Amino acid sequence: MPNVLVLPGDGIGLEITPEAVKVLQAVLKGHSTTLNFEYGLIGGAGIDEAGKALPDETLAAAQAADAILLGSVGGPKWDTLPAPQRPELGGLLALRKALGLFANIRPVKMLPMLVEASTLRTEVVKNVDLVVLRELTGGLYFGEKGRGTNPNSAFDTLVYTEEEIRRIVDLGFQMAAKRRGRLCSVDKANVLESSRFWREITLDIAKNYPEVELTHMYVDNAAMQLVRWPEQFDVIVTENMFGDILTDLASMLMGSIGMISSASLNGGKGLYEPAHGSAPDIAGKNIANPLATILSGALMLRYSFGLEHEAQMIEKAVERVLQEGYRTPDLAKSGDKVLGTREMGDAVVEAL
Amino acid sequence: MPNVLVLPGDGIGLEITPEAVKVLQAVLKGHSTTLNFEYGLIGGAGIDEAGKALPDETLAAAQAADAILLGSVGGPKWDTLPAPQRPELGGLLALRKALGLFANIRPVKMLPMLVEASTLRTEVVKNVDLVVLRELTGGLYFGEKGRGTNPNSAFDTLVYTEEEIRRIVDLGFQMAAKRRGRLCSVDKANVLESSRFWREITLDIAKNYPEVELTHMYVDNAAMQLVRWPEQFDVIVTENMFGDILTDLASMLMGSIGMISSASLNGGKGLYEPAHGSAPDIAGKNIANPLATILSGALMLRYSFGLEHEAQMIEKAVERVLQEGYRTPDLAKSGDKVLGTREMGDAVVEAL
Ligand SMILES: CC(C)[C@H](C(=O)O)[C@@H](O)C(=O)O
Ligand SMILES: CC(C)[C@H](C(=O)O)[C@@H](O)C(=O)O
Repeated sequence: MPNVLVLPGDGIGLEITPEAVKVLQAVLKGHSTTLNFEYGLIGGAGIDEAGKALPDETLAAAQAADAILLGSVGGPKWDTLPAPQRPELGGLLALRKALGLFANIRPVKMLPMLVEASTLRTEVVKNVDLVVLRELTGGLYFGEKGRGTNPNSAFDTLVYTEEEIRRIVDLGFQMAAKRRGRLCSVDKANVLESSRFWREITLDIAKNYPEVELTHMYVDNAAMQLVRWPEQFDVIVTENMFGDILTDLASMLMGSIGMISSASLNGGKGLYEPAHGSAPDIAGKNIANPLATILSGALMLRYSFGLEHEAQMIEKAVERVLQEGYRTPDLAKSGDKVLGTREMGDAVVEAL
Repeated sequence: MPNVLVLPGDGIGLEITPEAVKVLQAVLKGHSTTLNFEYGLIGGAGIDEAGKALPDETLAAAQAADAILLGSVGGPKWDTLPAPQRPELGGLLALRKALGLFANIRPVKMLPMLVEASTLRTEVVKNVDLVVLRELTGGLYFGEKGRGTNPNSAFDTLVYTEEEIRRIVDLGFQMAAKRRGRLCSVDKANVLESSRFWREITLDIAKNYPEVELTHMYVDNAAMQLVRWPEQFDVIVTENMFGDILTDLASMLMGSIGMISSASLNGGKGLYEPAHGSAPDIAGKNIANPLATILSGALMLRYSFGLEHEAQMIEKAVERVLQEGYRTPDLAKSGDKVLGTREMGDAVVEAL
């Protein structure tokens, strides 16, 4: 029986992860695959109860687990700690690195009933269906960093090895081949040496995928094009920092980051989490939107357990609930039927 | 008599710079300040006619000039050269660095008659009035870069000295103090050491500007907020690469980058250019939009020559022409009166 480690984390993470677990249990009821859920501490909860953001026990459990479901980490309570100890760096980033989760996938697919929630005009976003594939364990995030004196200065290093670039770009080609066959590699090759290297390797890999149409785009232009004409994109692949910026930007096409799920993969192992944060201001009030976490559960079934049919069952159940006019407060307009966090989870279970 | 060096560059640069010169001459007709215009080569034109993208003669003229008006550089003809020799890196970036133009200013102010051209909903963009201040001579652009073997790799360095950060952030506070009093410093302090350094220095400078309200925002969130609620911003200050991405993104709020002017300053000296590129596909057809270059001329009067009144005269003339329904093809909708490049320049002169 596969083991899923659930790491609720902080803030609304404590409220949204139980809803995703509930939905996963419901969709697999009577199924030959059943999941065994275990629980661990991460982020502020790790600091408070076990002395650090990624307790050794959590790391060991994560290494042993088949998949991880994460809520969200962080909050004002821990913001005064030195950065490397905080929930984000000491918890989430440390876990990504330790597990080698090099590929972060964020699908952004517009649902007809959510078009009005976007700040972009309806005709610009109504057919958006793209995936951003972000390299997650290299680049500026993990390169050498430090301070200098004489003159007083600080530096970070953007470094990529050939192998790091190959594995992520290759995955981009594979994903594009399974979708609409178009891969856009985003870099800044007119300025960065690491981008020129990225581009050379990408061109080399392209030879193995003659059926995929490859384009290159500078990151400044990509940010612009995501706002100007987002429907032009199928799969976008890019390095860590550019991906951090572009995934959030792409999520915003949906109007709220409350619907965006994500998967962070390393071949076999996967970590699944909503794209949004821990929202300390609304925590504990049963008003957080659990759908991004529920949809992250669907990604888990797809990528970690090969259960494509069951993944789609969850995705369709979410659509059905929205179709019927149910919304959590973050998405509600007048006329909608507003549900709390738990009630939204129940509605998805019922729609299954 | 102040000297202005005009560098038309490549593509539509050759068509749009004469219109800006025409407007500058018209607004200063009979004025006590008259400008002397000289001309030079840069970019592809420099490569073709003088053997390199930034010919020595051009650099010397730029160093001697009081201000520089630039069109745009680059085109497919030179894209096969090694990156450091190309029009962008070898021409434009080399000139920025040689003149120490550390501050890039891009104002993004919505005009009522252009609201419909934005891909964002009217109510989201109608009151946008922000400035992005981008550091232009440091960071990843100019840090050490190279390749490594064993393993095969490539790197770039994001490095900032205290002095580089101080001068740009200080300018941000000055600009905010003269506008609506709000400065948003964008960084990635939860990950980058250079950002933590940036934040410390920013907090230190803030003590000198008690009247300015300072906020900090992570760059991923800033990209999102520019799409979600752009009216929240007054002045944004950020490092070079983040600024490259965010200035283009912010420009897109206007629907077309064809209206966005920019100033690159170093205390006394300034280089003024449109935010758009050389658009080789439409070059030579008298259809390019000269307004961003004309508005860059207004910025020149404001920042290099202290002629605020005359700068505003140009800005108002542009608004009047648009108000009357005149548009270049990039902005035209049905019912608009379409003008060519030269005719648009004439219309602005007339409106003066
Ligand atoms: C919390 C932060 C360190 C993290 C990142 O930058 O990777 C977040 O923005 C994300 O995208 O998951
Ligand atoms: C052409 C390119 C090198 C340049 C940059 O990245 O600075 C451009 O994008 C800009 O913003 O002026």
